[in-house]
Amino acid sequence: MNKTVYTFGGNAPEPDARQKDKTITGGKGANLAVMSSIGLPVPPGFTITTEESVRYLREGADFSDALRANVAEALTHIERTVGKKLGDASDPLLVSVRSGARVSMPGMMDTVLNLGLNDETVEGLAAASGDERFAWDSYRRFIQMYCDVVLGLDHGLFEEALEIAKEDKGFYADTEMEADDWKALVSEYKAIVKREYDRPFPQDVSDQLWGAIAAVFESWDSERAKIYRRLNDIPADWGTAVNVQAMVFGNMGETSATGVAFTRNPSTGEKSYYGEYLINAQGEDVVAGIRTPQYLTRAAREEANAKPLSMEEAMPDAFAELAQTFELLERHYRDMQDIEFTVQQGKLWMLQTRTGKRTARAALRMAVEMVEEGLIDEKDAIRRIDPMALDQLLHPTLDPKAHRDIMTTGLPASPGAASGKIVLDADTAEKWANSGEDVILVRVETSPEDIHGMHAAKGILTARGGMTSHAAVVARGMGRCCVSGASGLSIDMKERKLRIGSRNLDEGDTITLDGSNGQVMAGRVATIEPEVEGDFGTLMEWADRHRRMKVRTNAETPEDCRTARQFGAEGIGLCRTEHMFFDAERISAVRQMILAEDGEGRERALAKLLPEQRQDFQEIFEVMAGLPCTIRLLDPPLHEFLPTSDREFDELAGSLDTSADALKRRAAELHEFNPMLGHRGCRLGITFPEIYTMQVRAIFEAACSVAKDTSEAPLPEIMIPLVASARELKILRKLVDDVASEVFDEKGHKVDYLVGTMIELPRAALMADKIAEEGEFFSFGTNDLTQTTLGVSRDDAARFLGTYVEKGIFERDPFVSLDVDGVGQLVTLAAERGRETREDIKLGICGEHGGDPASIAFCEETGLDYVSASPYRVPIARLAAAQAVLA
Amino acid sequence: MNKTVYTFGGNAPEPDARQKDKTITGGKGANLAVMSSIGLPVPPGFTITTEESVRYLREGADFSDALRANVAEALTHIERTVGKKLGDASDPLLVSVRSGARVSMPGMMDTVLNLGLNDETVEGLAAASGDERFAWDSYRRFIQMYCDVVLGLDHGLFEEALEIAKEDKGFYADTEMEADDWKALVSEYKAIVKREYDRPFPQDVSDQLWGAIAAVFESWDSERAKIYRRLNDIPADWGTAVNVQAMVFGNMGETSATGVAFTRNPSTGEKSYYGEYLINAQGEDVVAGIRTPQYLTRAAREEANAKPLSMEEAMPDAFAELAQTFELLERHYRDMQDIEFTVQQGKLWMLQTRTGKRTARAALRMAVEMVEEGLIDEKDAIRRIDPMALDQLLHPTLDPKAHRDIMTTGLPASPGAASGKIVLDADTAEKWANSGEDVILVRVETSPEDIHGMHAAKGILTARGGMTSHAAVVARGMGRCCVSGASGLSIDMKERKLRIGSRNLDEGDTITLDGSNGQVMAGRVATIEPEVEGDFGTLMEWADRHRRMKVRTNAETPEDCRTARQFGAEGIGLCRTEHMFFDAERISAVRQMILAEDGEGRERALAKLLPEQRQDFQEIFEVMAGLPCTIRLLDPPLHEFLPTSDREFDELAGSLDTSADALKRRAAELHEFNPMLGHRGCRLGITFPEIYTMQVRAIFEAACSVAKDTSEAPLPEIMIPLVASARELKILRKLVDDVASEVFDEKGHKVDYLVGTMIELPRAALMADKIAEEGEFFSFGTNDLTQTTLGVSRDDAARFLGTYVEKGIFERDPFVSLDVDGVGQLVTLAAERGRETREDIKLGICGEHGGDPASIAFCEETGLDYVSASPYRVPIARLAAAQAVLA
Repeated sequence: MNKTVYTFGGNAPEPDARQKDKTITGGKGANLAVMSSIGLPVPPGFTITTEESVRYLREGADFSDALRANVAEALTHIERTVGKKLGDASDPLLVSVRSGARVSMPGMMDTVLNLGLNDETVEGLAAASGDERFAWDSYRRFIQMYCDVVLGLDHGLFEEALEIAKEDKGFYADTEMEADDWKALVSEYKAIVKREYDRPFPQDVSDQLWGAIAAVFESWDSERAKIYRRLNDIPADWGTAVNVQAMVFGNMGETSATGVAFTRNPSTGEKSYYGEYLINAQGEDVVAGIRTPQYLTRAAREEANAKPLSMEEAMPDAFAELAQTFELLERHYRDMQDIEFTVQQGKLWMLQTRTGKRTARAALRMAVEMVEEGLIDEKDAIRRIDPMALDQLLHPTLDPKAHRDIMTTGLPASPGAASGKIVLDADTAEKWANSGEDVILVRVETSPEDIHGMHAAKGILTARGGMTSHAAVVARGMGRCCVSGASGLSIDMKERKLRIGSRNLDEGDTITLDGSNGQVMAGRVATIEPEVEGDFGTLMEWADRHRRMKVRTNAETPEDCRTARQFGAEGIGLCRTEHMFFDAERISAVRQMILAEDGEGRERALAKLLPEQRQDFQEIFEVMAGLPCTIRLLDPPLHEFLPTSDREFDELAGSLDTSADALKRRAAELHEFNPMLGHRGCRLGITFPEIYTMQVRAIFEAACSVAKDTSEAPLPEIMIPLVASARELKILRKLVDDVASEVFDEKGHKVDYLVGTMIELPRAALMADKIAEEGEFFSFGTNDLTQTTLGVSRDDAARFLGTYVEKGIFERDPFVSLDVDGVGQLVTLAAERGRETREDIKLGICGEHGGDPASIAFCEETGLDYVSASPYRVPIARLAAAQAVLA
Repeated sequence: MNKTVYTFGGNAPEPDARQKDKTITGGKGANLAVMSSIGLPVPPGFTITTEESVRYLREGADFSDALRANVAEALTHIERTVGKKLGDASDPLLVSVRSGARVSMPGMMDTVLNLGLNDETVEGLAAASGDERFAWDSYRRFIQMYCDVVLGLDHGLFEEALEIAKEDKGFYADTEMEADDWKALVSEYKAIVKREYDRPFPQDVSDQLWGAIAAVFESWDSERAKIYRRLNDIPADWGTAVNVQAMVFGNMGETSATGVAFTRNPSTGEKSYYGEYLINAQGEDVVAGIRTPQYLTRAAREEANAKPLSMEEAMPDAFAELAQTFELLERHYRDMQDIEFTVQQGKLWMLQTRTGKRTARAALRMAVEMVEEGLIDEKDAIRRIDPMALDQLLHPTLDPKAHRDIMTTGLPASPGAASGKIVLDADTAEKWANSGEDVILVRVETSPEDIHGMHAAKGILTARGGMTSHAAVVARGMGRCCVSGASGLSIDMKERKLRIGSRNLDEGDTITLDGSNGQVMAGRVATIEPEVEGDFGTLMEWADRHRRMKVRTNAETPEDCRTARQFGAEGIGLCRTEHMFFDAERISAVRQMILAEDGEGRERALAKLLPEQRQDFQEIFEVMAGLPCTIRLLDPPLHEFLPTSDREFDELAGSLDTSADALKRRAAELHEFNPMLGHRGCRLGITFPEIYTMQVRAIFEAACSVAKDTSEAPLPEIMIPLVASARELKILRKLVDDVASEVFDEKGHKVDYLVGTMIELPRAALMADKIAEEGEFFSFGTNDLTQTTLGVSRDDAARFLGTYVEKGIFERDPFVSLDVDGVGQLVTLAAERGRETREDIKLGICGEHGGDPASIAFCEETGLDYVSASPYRVPIARLAAAQAVLA
């Protein structure tokens, strides 16, 4: 049986590994124990483990006798250290009760202060402190807080009562209230409790304590906490610890104070103390914003041109001790710390330390500077940066000071921020953008036909679709900001109006998107352009030095390829050739091909596409000269390319010399119930070989031409999609080889190439040993592999995915982070079986997961040769790949 | 190196195992060797193995030197035995060349007779036989056949020339043609060859022989052969053997004859010789139908009241030898034989024997009688019946003698035959059927809404969908005949007209369907009602004695349950509760539930459904008393239940006090891109627990009530669909347990029950060890498991499945016969992992594969506890399960 309650402070025993482990004692509890053990002044207290909260919630809200006994014992530790007793009417011990999960969680119960006060002990506190006002103020604060966070009463009632009391007296500030005023207010508060809670305010201090502990436990499963967990990918089974600690008072006169501080500037990363404090105040006063806090250092005060003395000036001794503490903490934790402290009658007490949150920019600067300072090494620096935070550095962000008029919130599908005029279709987006407008493309959902509009837009907003919907994937690839699945959005295409949340808007109205949190705002909100500083380059260099896997990119335009190379891509992992088919000038030939009655008709149309497609590849190969380029042959079902509007049908009918009705009939014939599982991928190549023949010819003609013109030939890796059996690959590999040798003969030039396949169906993974006989590489198409393995369409999953994450069925959205338990088994098995057949088979991943750090860690474990990510995720992948090696 | 050429007849060596193996020497070749080895008179010859044809086709149409040498040697064997030489101008050897695959295949080149004749040898044959007419007739027959089957010339040209020649002479029958007439015709024929073939008719006998061999090899890949293979599930890599054999002549006068015979009546199974023969004729004359063949036995002739003497009367000696041969062959092969023979100048020669095709009825009778005769044992009898053939016995069939005016051919989706008036929607079907009409429901495709119309109809015809489309599955379950995916069918709902093939029809016109071969015929074709005779019962009893697996049924109405029990079902393996929701009186409450804004609204609608659903289960439990009943909770996406027509929307809006537009919007919101992978199965149960709560309550209330009323409680097995993770099952198992104990408390009665899941997603199979912690049984839902593992939607697969089977990518339609290599791995793995966690876990299969013999064999190997099939497939499953044990 593990210990369930740990003490700290005073003469508590040295913390063991479990007590220092945040997963057991929570972030706050572990750090309090550590601080006390390195000699910092910490008020004595104890921590109930996270495990106990999980047990409590699982076993139906009942405390075990063992826990009650352990808490009683730990309480004695506090009482002995402080020399006071909880509930002692003459000189009572007061404690704070705080929640403390593994990570800081705003959704949960935070703090109850001054616990231990009741109608009797308040008198004892008055006598012992010699300050009646302080005692009654503390009591009313306690009632107010306890009622709010433990009893769940509306805190407005208490604030209202305080306002009335002040008005009655003609007071403006709380400080004007005298002891008797507070005493009267306490009576008023107790009456409110009796009325609203139907029971008196608990006078038994033990009831108070256990009530607070239960409230902390239960706050783990509050709606707010659940929402926060879902948004932040925190598993439900972590649970929270409870910290009970002797109170210290920053509000015992002018020699007392309370404050918060960072050991370095969390916004810029600069090495300078940063924080604020308030004289004669309790912790919540700093946060509440009732009084304006004062600066910590003189330098900061002077820079802000502020009057009230800084702590450095007002309390030089306490400040000096605090500054020493900063250094001690940084040396101990080897990272920037976020601190809460209280000065009680000149004596400094540390209430909390934790590794401080910081902006991406600050994180980078601190990491690089700490390496220079010798505080950490290169590997630590690499480990320390959250790869996803790099996104902030590469995209514009909204000015945090600007006002946000939020209309609705969708999914943060692609990072960055953008303002612009609403446009409701891709053509309009292009037209308005060409005339110099910033536009935001707003659609129910996007389809491949919208690509030119997405390119023209500054941002994309959709009503449907998840984090890996078409809009999300394409936007990330382009580096456009995107908010998807904004459920409060409805569009009336006929009237060209839309409704966002409760607001009616017209096409042309200006909105702003924040792709990092999914917010949709009215009007224009100021943005800050990204600055990629030297620290970024330094860190990337370190990451490259440590990673094993190569990092490629998913890209299909020369522009994207160039971006990706700038970000360090070492090849193309996925070039989706179909995206090239949507170009306005080609789509007509594509449609002719699809609607052709026979192979000959298709070939005529394909002949028109050949030179265009060759040109595409030529440009890409020029950018990627010398690097491997995995090119996936046509994958989506053909009906995706068909017209949808009557106008388009009419136009096409004209150019094809047939009737729009005939075309609509043919298009309806191509309709599929489950296109994801339909006539697509290599099934197209098998049934219409002429399409793949054209594409392969274009690839090799382009490759030969670039190889001749430059000294560096690209290495085309022809990828056959949606293979389920070795025979499909065998048939199509022969097609590729035949066309290749034809082209080589014609050109009198040869280039190296590989033929391989995506592993994106469970059957392909299961048959990987056979498939490896035909293919020289596997690229794991984990988007589709996730869809088929889980039986979940990513376009339709939004309806239940939220509930699923909430109920702990999925730990995270499996389209964002690979389902290692399930899908991972197939990847591992395919990698093993593939290698059994072909020892040197090249293995990579080209699904969206290739840009997700957790998934990249799995790829490292599985021994893949490379990951491939969209251009803007290449730096993330480089860093994550290095972290995976160092893990 | 295996032998590539085997000799038989004369003093050829005893056949070894390979020569007697049909997979090596083909059916014909193996049987010729066997006949010769058991002392039957077989003209000498040799067989080139099937392996050689596969090699020939793979390696690009070239004969190896080794093969040429072996053939030359084998030819010497014939020449020595007969005492004549191929190409000998004075007394030439003539040979026949026949294809011979593992099974008889009408799509392939059949036969070239009289090979070895040319301008010189014809004279030798005339001289040696003393019959110039015979010689020249043989020569012209040879040219005609060779040109047709080897050179690929239009045989009409030769027939026309013959007709002209006869007309010129004023002849009516070929028999009037004299030697000179044939000689002149040969010149004419040679001129045709020169003109059409651009080369003279090959005079080199060796060229003739190799040309014929090549033609046989190549005919394996002819279009007709490919189509036949696809329709009959014959793998492309079997290849065909070639049989070269000395000619014997049934056309050498009145003591010569040729005939075909069965050792028992292939239509009824009666033990009596059955066949026909022709005096003075060659084999093809019997088949060609130019002359009316005569009966074999006197009894048959008398029964038919025919004049021409039977063989028994006309050639008593040869007949007696033939009759002895029949007995010898049946004793040897222990089965009914289908024989070709020739009598040359009084001497009987056996040209072929093979196990005879038979009707299902005949197969049953023969098997049962042969056991009685001691020819075979019970196990042989079980092994011998093709389980699928039982279908014929349980459904009406078309009178084989009736004329068929075939308009198009679709897929044989559900067996049986039916005639009726075309109706184009389910409501009309019901209306017309109620007024006493036989109707055939014709739809582009059916959906769950059409069920009442399908029930009312005699047969169902659809334009789309495969063998496991909705129409096919439901029709098989109901025992309705169904032709699906009839591509030549288009429907104009507005005009209520349709087009089948090239014919225009109106609603109300009569058509006939043959569900056993997919034919769609104009008008009414006479049908024969099924007779399930005593032999059927006997065989089923034997099968039950030998099988290990239980056989359950997929059924959801009391009627279907009764049918299934009559057919021997031992429980329900799959009761799809959603089918019960489509009842006209309930659908409105179902729709209210779906369109409800919140859980409360859903509960109100569900309260209306509860008594109805309870009644469903009560009736089913009464029929299945004492047996296990697996009931699957709601599975399909909710939008399947929504209205589709404007009228229905209006009606529903009226009853719900809302607008049709609002409902349409809500319905559009429920639209999914890939409903197969959408918000369905247990995902509904997780997000809308009140639906499952209602269903589970209905089940337990009904079970308690039946358990009280009868002494036999049913064993409900509650099945949670589409589970991908153990946690889903854990959450829903708790829901089931909670409702169960509530109901048991209310009723004061308990019934045993199990909670388990379908394994129908790859992830479920992979996580089976964890899932087995929560579930007491697994039922393999191989329809969905096939869809997800292969990434193929069965509703959309029709577009490429044909090509896939043709190109050998799939051996068979994976929705009809389980993909053992791929999907099978997941089934095996899930069974293993499930048993590791829970040793006694109950394992079954409820996909359509549960009625497919090959898949049932796999289930036996995997050690499943039961298979479940639609009611009419229960006997098939019983037999196949027994065969699987005996295999």
